[in-house]
Amino acid sequence: MTGAKSYISASADFASGKSSPRDFLEAALAAIDAREGEIEAFVARLDPAIARARADEASKRWRNGAQRSSIDGMPVGIKDVIETIDMPTGMGSPLYDNWRGEKDSASVWASRDAGAIPIGKTVTTEFAASHPGPTRNPHDLARTPGGSSSGSAAGVAAGFFPAGLGTQVVGSIVRPASYCGVFGFKPTFGAINRGGSHDYMSQSSQGVLAASLNDAWSTLSAIAMRVGGDPGYPGLEGPLTPPEARKPKVLIALETPGWAIASEGAHAAFESIKARLIITGVHILTRRDRPEIEAFETMLMRALPLTRLINAWESLWPLNTYADRDVSKLSAIMRERMVEGAELNIGGYRAALAERASIRAAFASLAQIGEACVTLSAPGPAPLGLQSTGDPSFAIAASVLGAPALSLPMLTDDTLPLGLQLIGFERADADLFAIAASVEQM
Amino acid sequence: MTGAKSYISASADFASGKSSPRDFLEAALAAIDAREGEIEAFVARLDPAIARARADEASKRWRNGAQRSSIDGMPVGIKDVIETIDMPTGMGSPLYDNWRGEKDSASVWASRDAGAIPIGKTVTTEFAASHPGPTRNPHDLARTPGGSSSGSAAGVAAGFFPAGLGTQVVGSIVRPASYCGVFGFKPTFGAINRGGSHDYMSQSSQGVLAASLNDAWSTLSAIAMRVGGDPGYPGLEGPLTPPEARKPKVLIALETPGWAIASEGAHAAFESIKARLIITGVHILTRRDRPEIEAFETMLMRALPLTRLINAWESLWPLNTYADRDVSKLSAIMRERMVEGAELNIGGYRAALAERASIRAAFASLAQIGEACVTLSAPGPAPLGLQSTGDPSFAIAASVLGAPALSLPMLTDDTLPLGLQLIGFERADADLFAIAASVEQM
Repeated sequence: MTGAKSYISASADFASGKSSPRDFLEAALAAIDAREGEIEAFVARLDPAIARARADEASKRWRNGAQRSSIDGMPVGIKDVIETIDMPTGMGSPLYDNWRGEKDSASVWASRDAGAIPIGKTVTTEFAASHPGPTRNPHDLARTPGGSSSGSAAGVAAGFFPAGLGTQVVGSIVRPASYCGVFGFKPTFGAINRGGSHDYMSQSSQGVLAASLNDAWSTLSAIAMRVGGDPGYPGLEGPLTPPEARKPKVLIALETPGWAIASEGAHAAFESIKARLIITGVHILTRRDRPEIEAFETMLMRALPLTRLINAWESLWPLNTYADRDVSKLSAIMRERMVEGAELNIGGYRAALAERASIRAAFASLAQIGEACVTLSAPGPAPLGLQSTGDPSFAIAASVLGAPALSLPMLTDDTLPLGLQLIGFERADADLFAIAASVEQM
Repeated sequence: MTGAKSYISASADFASGKSSPRDFLEAALAAIDAREGEIEAFVARLDPAIARARADEASKRWRNGAQRSSIDGMPVGIKDVIETIDMPTGMGSPLYDNWRGEKDSASVWASRDAGAIPIGKTVTTEFAASHPGPTRNPHDLARTPGGSSSGSAAGVAAGFFPAGLGTQVVGSIVRPASYCGVFGFKPTFGAINRGGSHDYMSQSSQGVLAASLNDAWSTLSAIAMRVGGDPGYPGLEGPLTPPEARKPKVLIALETPGWAIASEGAHAAFESIKARLIITGVHILTRRDRPEIEAFETMLMRALPLTRLINAWESLWPLNTYADRDVSKLSAIMRERMVEGAELNIGGYRAALAERASIRAAFASLAQIGEACVTLSAPGPAPLGLQSTGDPSFAIAASVLGAPALSLPMLTDDTLPLGLQLIGFERADADLFAIAASVEQM
């Protein structure tokens, strides 16, 4: 049993007092008491007494019509690569046990300013890469929740909090959203200020795992209006309130590198939703309709090796300084990445950046024929075991493109959750939400 | 008396054993013993015994022809916003007394990998902004060394180290280089990896204060080839060895916002060097020759207010989280900046970014009529007193442009040092050095 609960929906009853942020928090704390022992979404938690006091203050503000924002009083989970002033930041690595940056990250500060209550730090893989943490999938404890934003995804699915901050450089939001059956939003590159978040790579974005589209949008728009995007970037663009549903005329069904390895069930689920889209009057284009889609998809086959190369170079630091400190505290996966990185040189990296730029340009030109892309979020349900966080072949497209992506928990494969992924064009995050709100109702 | 000493020049005698990195270090340590008490360039120092042991190892490598790089064994100073694993990083703020990031910054790691010896952390203004530290100008102890890279500039001038890492978001490398009579190099935005350096703003660059052009180039190129530039940027481009001198045909004499406030002596010094350039056959263009120069200079009058606005928004975080912690530990200047920032909104910031982009585009088009720009580095010599780090009106141009800038210690005003500034086009850092090497000989 899972129980993702929308804070934005619940807040309709906060002004009248029929319900309150305190009531919402109590339900979350009860869910945590009931299931955290088996799920292990958290690495550190705020004292519940402090959370209750803050929820009571928010409850008063809502009763007085003086809430700070639409997420005032919302309990949030914070991926443990993102700094919090009141909890340590461990980065999923023994090198950072109990480490403190002595500040809030920009996103955490903004969420507090909007009245949200960071109730805990959530499990991340080691340095938001591949080596898994202990978190289990709330839908099936024998399966991975996906990574690297493992605890934020599992925590939303289990009803611990309606929104959990996450980061994605390969597939770290879209993939766990798919596996845990929650909404996942990775915005346009640079849209959310990464200050104080230890995800510095050139295709890494901060985003959110959430109980609903509205929770996802409300959380990130409240953050962006307060602290903006990365320095030099315009930040998440769009209205403060969730964009109204807008039915798209033309969507591009994208056969990413994951297509060939997707399960039969995943293919069937996708065909079924595609049929529903067509019935409601959405025109679907594929590589068989347009040569420019085929050409783009051919370029996209390079997404994974290109990302590996870029990430390996961009990770050389700080891995080298960590290795100098105590190489035994790096996982085998990280030590392998260092070996890959050490074989590179700056010329190879520059060539990779140029190739990535050409893929992005090809994608941008698709905006002339379609309003967004639709595809799967993962090749199938969460795999059994906790040793791997799963395959990123579908999730990686938006990462390499720097484009906004949404995973909608609309599909199932073998009774387990599977995400439908929408990928938008750069800076058109709000439009992607409008389309998603329409697709969700189909 | 000052005594900047070039390591690259000295290294000519390292293979033969006529001199050695250990000899170079001993001279630096003697200079430190003699003058650090009155100059106060350092906030933390490496144990000299450790530095000596490292210099001895480098001495052996040079004797064996096995030096790691052209800066193997070079003592370097590290501005105290840049993390070092063996020394705390205080950021010029009581909020960070004795704080440790538990890692080397990318640039520090790379300089060590190249064999350099970080011998100390150097004084920075509070968070690399305006509130000054205790450092005094080696040319006149009653005067500021300039900021924010105060200790790195003063340390080079006093012969404590031939290269000091610095950062510039307004005028923090070019200005102290001018005041202290040393070379200052602020590269193209993104050219040096800022990982682990707490200068996150969108026009902030890491660069170097140095005893010679060759020391400046050798230091940064050794770093860039090892850890590249900021993630997603190509990194400092050009040869590993200092670019050969190349006499320019056409330079643009830029009358920045500082022109109107420059001293008579500064104007006279500039006219004199301009005359020398013309005599050697360099054609000099000014706003009186070409309307596009005049138009660009008019746009540039907005550099300072625009930078203030951009910096205020981009500083809101982390200043807000520091203020929440203990506002009494922020200087009055910082508290003012927070007030400015709080009055802004993301819309104003986006407009400022757009205006900055238009100034950059106007500058880029000047590449069609000139090979680089030449101007002053400061409106006059270092001002008396330590309360202010001086006027940034000349230094700010390259910051707002994201362009490479070099300050050459070629001029004097009232017997005190004054820099001649060369500003190049984006990513043409190596060509700027080639031009500078030619100008330096005129």
